[in-house]
Amino acid sequence: MRLDRLRSVHALLLLIGLLVFGVMPAGAEAGTDPLPSWNEGATKQSIIDYVTRVTKQGGPDYVVPKDRLATIDNDGTLWVEKPIYTQFVFAIDEVKRQANQHPEWKSKEPFKSVLAGDMKAVAAMGEKGMVEIVAATHSGMTTTDFNETVKQWLATAKHPRFKVLYTDLVYQPMIELLDYLHANGFKTFIVDGGGIEFMRPWMERVYGIPPEQVVGSSIKTKFELRAGTPVLVRLRELNFVDDKAAKPVGIHLHIGRRPIAAFGNSDGDLQMLQWTTAGSGERFGLLVHHTDAEREWAYDRKSSIGKLDKAWDEAKTKNWTVVDMKTDWKNMFAFEP
Amino acid sequence: MRLDRLRSVHALLLLIGLLVFGVMPAGAEAGTDPLPSWNEGATKQSIIDYVTRVTKQGGPDYVVPKDRLATIDNDGTLWVEKPIYTQFVFAIDEVKRQANQHPEWKSKEPFKSVLAGDMKAVAAMGEKGMVEIVAATHSGMTTTDFNETVKQWLATAKHPRFKVLYTDLVYQPMIELLDYLHANGFKTFIVDGGGIEFMRPWMERVYGIPPEQVVGSSIKTKFELRAGTPVLVRLRELNFVDDKAAKPVGIHLHIGRRPIAAFGNSDGDLQMLQWTTAGSGERFGLLVHHTDAEREWAYDRKSSIGKLDKAWDEAKTKNWTVVDMKTDWKNMFAFEP
Repeated sequence: MRLDRLRSVHALLLLIGLLVFGVMPAGAEAGTDPLPSWNEGATKQSIIDYVTRVTKQGGPDYVVPKDRLATIDNDGTLWVEKPIYTQFVFAIDEVKRQANQHPEWKSKEPFKSVLAGDMKAVAAMGEKGMVEIVAATHSGMTTTDFNETVKQWLATAKHPRFKVLYTDLVYQPMIELLDYLHANGFKTFIVDGGGIEFMRPWMERVYGIPPEQVVGSSIKTKFELRAGTPVLVRLRELNFVDDKAAKPVGIHLHIGRRPIAAFGNSDGDLQMLQWTTAGSGERFGLLVHHTDAEREWAYDRKSSIGKLDKAWDEAKTKNWTVVDMKTDWKNMFAFEP
Repeated sequence: MRLDRLRSVHALLLLIGLLVFGVMPAGAEAGTDPLPSWNEGATKQSIIDYVTRVTKQGGPDYVVPKDRLATIDNDGTLWVEKPIYTQFVFAIDEVKRQANQHPEWKSKEPFKSVLAGDMKAVAAMGEKGMVEIVAATHSGMTTTDFNETVKQWLATAKHPRFKVLYTDLVYQPMIELLDYLHANGFKTFIVDGGGIEFMRPWMERVYGIPPEQVVGSSIKTKFELRAGTPVLVRLRELNFVDDKAAKPVGIHLHIGRRPIAAFGNSDGDLQMLQWTTAGSGERFGLLVHHTDAEREWAYDRKSSIGKLDKAWDEAKTKNWTVVDMKTDWKNMFAFEP
């Protein structure tokens, strides 16, 4: 109760601030830097310029708050996607955890290799093996149980290189960018190829983005009454893959209107940026380019995960902002000194 | 700009009001009646009691604002669904409008009968004919064009009995209920069997519910570049039918968490109410029972549209509120004297 009251007081002060400093974007008043983890330069300036233009009341590019929608990719844009997608690490760990309920896995690939710890053999099976592992470990349970499993895994699993929780591997400059957008009246949506139910359990806590603003890949679910209690059971049947040309489709299905800004890092985000920036008025597209092998990883045109090739070329012709992680980001992660 | 400033001032006054009258539900302070079109009685009281309980800070049933989600059916709950669903009237009119682009329709059923004005023959073809008409008229165009077509139709088409626009046939007591929920921090979602893209173009204007909070049935769409311009094309392929046991599925896919209150009018809403009211804490379920043949229609267990049978029985055992439109509603429509 006291916290809520405090929040109301805080909101009131914020609102008075907005009334007094109405034409200034939030975070810009009183000389505070809304993006302290970003080095000064053209990249940072392009973000601040855009937000300033669309929030300037009476300006030619002003956008009313209700139309300030932004869509943001997750893997490789907001958190680390190397050496493999986090959700796949989760699936591997789930094979091990669920193994005693599946004695047949001991002699059945790709589970056999996973249980033997032979990740080279798993990798050799390619996408087919990966899909099999994800399908087997992500279906059969209720949505409530799956949600709980994801939360428990994220509370303990550590990244092999950084030895921290996966939710600590979010890029601090991008967290500041999300805060900056929220402070300026933007409604942000995650639009990612990852499983929608793998993302929703933690994104409100980590990004301030509630479940209803998370768009992702999904499997089908089925409503059932179990001893009179309604449950939703996760079926082993694909519903939607939210990647590449399907991203605008996912945006349209879940959001129903076109965002004014989009943020990604790979060719999987190309069509989302095309769709977003083709709308009328001032639009903003941004790609995160992984250039820092020392603090994170360096990869682009030839990477199997997070390939940045066509989208990078198009960024040049369409004037989208391309972030050079090595030179544009002062800090990478919050846990760094 | 001036309007925005005015809105900010208004928001400030509202916020100060909330701080000062923090424990009172909005609309209840200063003795104003938040639901003036509802007659006094148990039905109205059950709504006010619920909202008061979940918004009372420090009370045993208090729900923080971010968890105040409500899902609401549209056809028969918020607007008239008789003599046939509005979307079907739209589809019939579209057959006529699109006829010169489809010379083959003159000799092909069910279009032939529609063009001949023989609605009895159309009705005799049952659901199959209806599905064919909707599929043919709702696909092939871009999402932007379809959105425009819906808006134009709604701006002129009149209901055969009431001779007013369809968007004027929204139940005034339910509009007040939506406003009351919004004023008390609820985030409302439409969850309806109607087409999601038939509903989104007008619901923000009429209900104050933005496109991203509308869940409905959908067809598949496909991303395309046309002369470099990205479009989404509506395909003649079903994506999701948002009715009955699929309503909790749609809620879970689009919203990702369980609402605390649900509002419907038929057996198509049964599972939504089961799912909603099975959650922990105080929950609210409401069914609108069409009992007023004079001001609207009277129908329930034997109606082909808006059948209310099993859900009505379950409402009794589960203590859901059942609205008797004839006795509970002082006014039906805003256009009435």
